[in-house]
Amino acid sequence: MFVKKYFEEFSLEEVRETIGRTITETDIVMHAGQTGDFFPHHMDAEWCKTQPFQRRIAHGTLIFSVAVGMTASFINEVAMTYGYERLRFTKPVFIGDTIKVKVSIKEMKDHHKRPDYGLVTELVEVFNQHGELVMLCEHILLTQKRPA
Amino acid sequence: MFVKKYFEEFSLEEVRETIGRTITETDIVMHAGQTGDFFPHHMDAEWCKTQPFQRRIAHGTLIFSVAVGMTASFINEVAMTYGYERLRFTKPVFIGDTIKVKVSIKEMKDHHKRPDYGLVTELVEVFNQHGELVMLCEHILLTQKRPA
Amino acid sequence: MFVKKYFEEFSLEEVRETIGRTITETDIVMHAGQTGDFFPHHMDAEWCKTQPFQRRIAHGTLIFSVAVGMTASFINEVAMTYGYERLRFTKPVFIGDTIKVKVSIKEMKDHHKRPDYGLVTELVEVFNQHGELVMLCEHILLTQKRPA
Amino acid sequence: MFVKKYFEEFSLEEVRETIGRTITETDIVMHAGQTGDFFPHHMDAEWCKTQPFQRRIAHGTLIFSVAVGMTASFINEVAMTYGYERLRFTKPVFIGDTIKVKVSIKEMKDHHKRPDYGLVTELVEVFNQHGELVMLCEHILLTQKRPA
Amino acid sequence: MFVKKYFEEFSLEEVRETIGRTITETDIVMHAGQTGDFFPHHMDAEWCKTQPFQRRIAHGTLIFSVAVGMTASFINEVAMTYGYERLRFTKPVFIGDTIKVKVSIKEMKDHHKRPDYGLVTELVEVFNQHGELVMLCEHILLTQKRPA
Amino acid sequence: MFVKKYFEEFSLEEVRETIGRTITETDIVMHAGQTGDFFPHHMDAEWCKTQPFQRRIAHGTLIFSVAVGMTASFINEVAMTYGYERLRFTKPVFIGDTIKVKVSIKEMKDHHKRPDYGLVTELVEVFNQHGELVMLCEHILLTQKRPA
Repeated sequence: MFVKKYFEEFSLEEVRETIGRTITETDIVMHAGQTGDFFPHHMDAEWCKTQPFQRRIAHGTLIFSVAVGMTASFINEVAMTYGYERLRFTKPVFIGDTIKVKVSIKEMKDHHKRPDYGLVTELVEVFNQHGELVMLCEHILLTQKRPA
Repeated sequence: MFVKKYFEEFSLEEVRETIGRTITETDIVMHAGQTGDFFPHHMDAEWCKTQPFQRRIAHGTLIFSVAVGMTASFINEVAMTYGYERLRFTKPVFIGDTIKVKVSIKEMKDHHKRPDYGLVTELVEVFNQHGELVMLCEHILLTQKRPA
Repeated sequence: MFVKKYFEEFSLEEVRETIGRTITETDIVMHAGQTGDFFPHHMDAEWCKTQPFQRRIAHGTLIFSVAVGMTASFINEVAMTYGYERLRFTKPVFIGDTIKVKVSIKEMKDHHKRPDYGLVTELVEVFNQHGELVMLCEHILLTQKRPA
Repeated sequence: MFVKKYFEEFSLEEVRETIGRTITETDIVMHAGQTGDFFPHHMDAEWCKTQPFQRRIAHGTLIFSVAVGMTASFINEVAMTYGYERLRFTKPVFIGDTIKVKVSIKEMKDHHKRPDYGLVTELVEVFNQHGELVMLCEHILLTQKRPA
Repeated sequence: MFVKKYFEEFSLEEVRETIGRTITETDIVMHAGQTGDFFPHHMDAEWCKTQPFQRRIAHGTLIFSVAVGMTASFINEVAMTYGYERLRFTKPVFIGDTIKVKVSIKEMKDHHKRPDYGLVTELVEVFNQHGELVMLCEHILLTQKRPA
Repeated sequence: MFVKKYFEEFSLEEVRETIGRTITETDIVMHAGQTGDFFPHHMDAEWCKTQPFQRRIAHGTLIFSVAVGMTASFINEVAMTYGYERLRFTKPVFIGDTIKVKVSIKEMKDHHKRPDYGLVTELVEVFNQHGELVMLCEHILLTQKRPA
């Protein structure tokens, strides 16, 4: 499960897709419990009936956390997270929706200060069972270049 | 707990700070369980001893989720999350560290397409008990302007 | 979030009401797991079908704990819980019911031994989405009097 | 596990004591997550250091829920909870403390309206590993009288 | 709750049956979180629709763990688990199924090396609400013989 | 993550080893909550001090469940669990111990009734951080033979 994938081994053509996961009421209740966010959008089915979306919706931070977790398959010993950009929640995720994550390489560039490192930007897109995009973000990886 | 805070009521001088919360082993184990990310950085105390940071560290998505949850106090009926930018994890959070969140207004601007809305950018900064910055991000709120 | 609300600032006219929260199957399963109470009233849907209430019902201690938690908004530094009286479960709470809590001041009196303290009795009432009272109790707060 | 213990079979001499259970950090974090009560008394180790009790303390509702659960051994088909009185938290419970519950019969009386029922009052006392009383309450059981 | 039941007190005629427990979506999501097994058989409702069983099924290890837990009523101080044999999952358990466990004594024999101990083999059978066998195993108990 | 590994592709030389996972107090408390097994061996630190092992020990079913989960990496579409044999807990696992799982192929044989299937027996061994064997079992896989 540990791998060494250097900067040079990434390519703009790469795409990977995860298996699916159904977002359950349990996930939402546990995420409320972990974060302390008990807003009625997530926790009050009666109030939600009075709102445009009509049903309880998953926390944005839940979808982000689960999506990032779903892509965590191999441990790349020569890369680490530099940060995330442009995190957007484009559609609500409801109880019973099933999400999949698609990761593609959007950009690769040298690190401006550290010649032995590059920055790889992964585009992370989350889709529901209808093929609709529900979340996206850019994950920037600080990645070692292959030793000479 | 429901409030209406319009675009005009935000100001660049505003700052609020949350109470503290200790990040526990329980939080990490439950976050692994929620996300499926059982990487040894978070879950294998023996392996961590061989690494520079020497101890298990919290998932970035855990700190982000908890920090966002800690700021969720009032429900502003006239604003919604547009997205997050520039999410960075600047220092590891260890088991037993206590974090607080500081929210300040970084930018306020009109929405370029919708004249009745503005964009408020909150700078979200998370500090540990030593006053060290461990995470930051920018939270963009799509906010209604006060009806004329 | 920390406030100082002295005995003199309470009044018999005060009423506050929380937002709602839907009690889920997850809450019941987790409460069984936390308390060790796996009685069939809460955990055996088949057995419940043979009973007058026909469906699984929430533990009384779950409703009490959630209701008390829902009222925990501000931290009053000059008051502490003295105890609870007259805790009653007046109707069952089923999976999917949404509860709200209403807190009113029922009684205020001097502490018979400590002249700098008073006892404030809050009446805590829990209602379901049909407006039916499902639980009530009296919460007694030992509250400092304002320093002279 | 189902038993029928009628009013006449209770006696003021009866005492039972449970096995012990250690209250862990996990219990407190999960109870905060279940109830939404993230007050610093339970969740902020740094703040607690500045307080007289110096360490995080268990929620009162956690101790009450666990104590009630610990006494739930046999399902008495001819009794049901009428309510609780005089719930008091006499000492804080800290992470790592081990509690046991002692149940004795305090009072038995006829139900003033229903001749076929009696009210049995159990005194529920919770002790820590030092033998100190940390919680007590009275549990009133509405109990059928033995059919003639 | 502590008992001493020696080898001589077991008999091949003994049978005991537990109360029931409904297996919920919560149980499956929490078991995935505890074990790290997020296989689509348990977690992806959409994928399951394409499979012969059509619905999410409980993890085998969940049913085994819950079944063993359901039989843990009395603590026999003079017996301990030697091991399990012939663990089989004979039918899938779906969300909402209610299981009961039946324990009968299948075999009793002397321990070939330790004359003061015997081996008691319990047949553990798990049934769903339709009376169908969903799991079975043999639980071998190393049991003290009664002191002379 | 879906693979097709037919009977012919298994070999008696195969060995794989997982990454490590530290067993925490949280795991034990949550496993008690999932299974209802609150025996003092796992949950009462004071009682454990009076026993030969002196500390709380993990439930056998927890170690079995986690170990099986740790080996669940690829989904083999042409194999399914037939059952488990000879499950033994050879040493206690304490809070803070880190386990790894080693899987080797012990036996491969034809299915006596179904010529298109074979039975592959995996030996599953769990080791702690001292290299001591703490659990073992045999996992029998019903595996399709490669279509002609």
